[in-house]
Amino acid sequence: MSKPLSMPFAERGSPSEIERGNAFQPKFDEHGLIPAIVTESGSGVVLMFAHMNADALRLTLDSGVAHFWSRSRSKLWKKGEESGNLLSVVEITTDCDQDVVCLSVNVAGNGVACHTGAKSCFYRRVNVVAGDVSTIELVPTSRS
Amino acid sequence: MSKPLSMPFAERGSPSEIERGNAFQPKFDEHGLIPAIVTESGSGVVLMFAHMNADALRLTLDSGVAHFWSRSRSKLWKKGEESGNLLSVVEITTDCDQDVVCLSVNVAGNGVACHTGAKSCFYRRVNVVAGDVSTIELVPTSRS
Repeated sequence: MSKPLSMPFAERGSPSEIERGNAFQPKFDEHGLIPAIVTESGSGVVLMFAHMNADALRLTLDSGVAHFWSRSRSKLWKKGEESGNLLSVVEITTDCDQDVVCLSVNVAGNGVACHTGAKSCFYRRVNVVAGDVSTIELVPTSRS
Repeated sequence: MSKPLSMPFAERGSPSEIERGNAFQPKFDEHGLIPAIVTESGSGVVLMFAHMNADALRLTLDSGVAHFWSRSRSKLWKKGEESGNLLSVVEITTDCDQDVVCLSVNVAGNGVACHTGAKSCFYRRVNVVAGDVSTIELVPTSRS
């Protein structure tokens, strides 16, 4: 690992520090991961959802290109490395508890964020058929 | 439990069914939870991030009001029940893997989604100071 990757993030402070402070103290879960929401810069459309370990988060902050931890492949994942659809980070925000990050990005290449070829991974709406919660279907959205 | 709550969701199908099908087969993790991203209807602003168990998801679909599972309190959580800032669900989408849901909502009451009083929980931007990734600070955003 290079130096920036091995550098840990700040220790978690008091609840007040975490909620109100200006120190970045991200919380990684028992698997060493933090959830990351990815939205399209400008439109705000939610494109995808993934996880980062500390190295992925550090690399993302350092390079300006989104990196994640692939849970299925158990490896660092530079999103778009194969497809060319790299995610160029415009802004990263964190929430009150600092246990989630939200990335605003521009998608390079052909602008597609989902491996299925859809612009966004959220291309289906959950529809309760005729108001009966026992009958639920998925319906394509305009983001399909 | 009432009938709607005890009704399970569909079993997970093949990867193709999950990605391409119209059957809702949400994946709950080892804790019985699915992540839920909450955005504001219209603006698309990401308001908060939480988790749902099957009952919370079923209740949300049935009532049109967002329910979550509070991990800190280990109980079903009708968001806004005390503050009055209930989340009225306009649309629920799910992602390619059906292991995340995304809610588009209108916030009732005074329109505030975060317990800190901010409209959105994502009220701070992660700022790499002078391009040096060893120095990171949080900076208020316009969503503060």
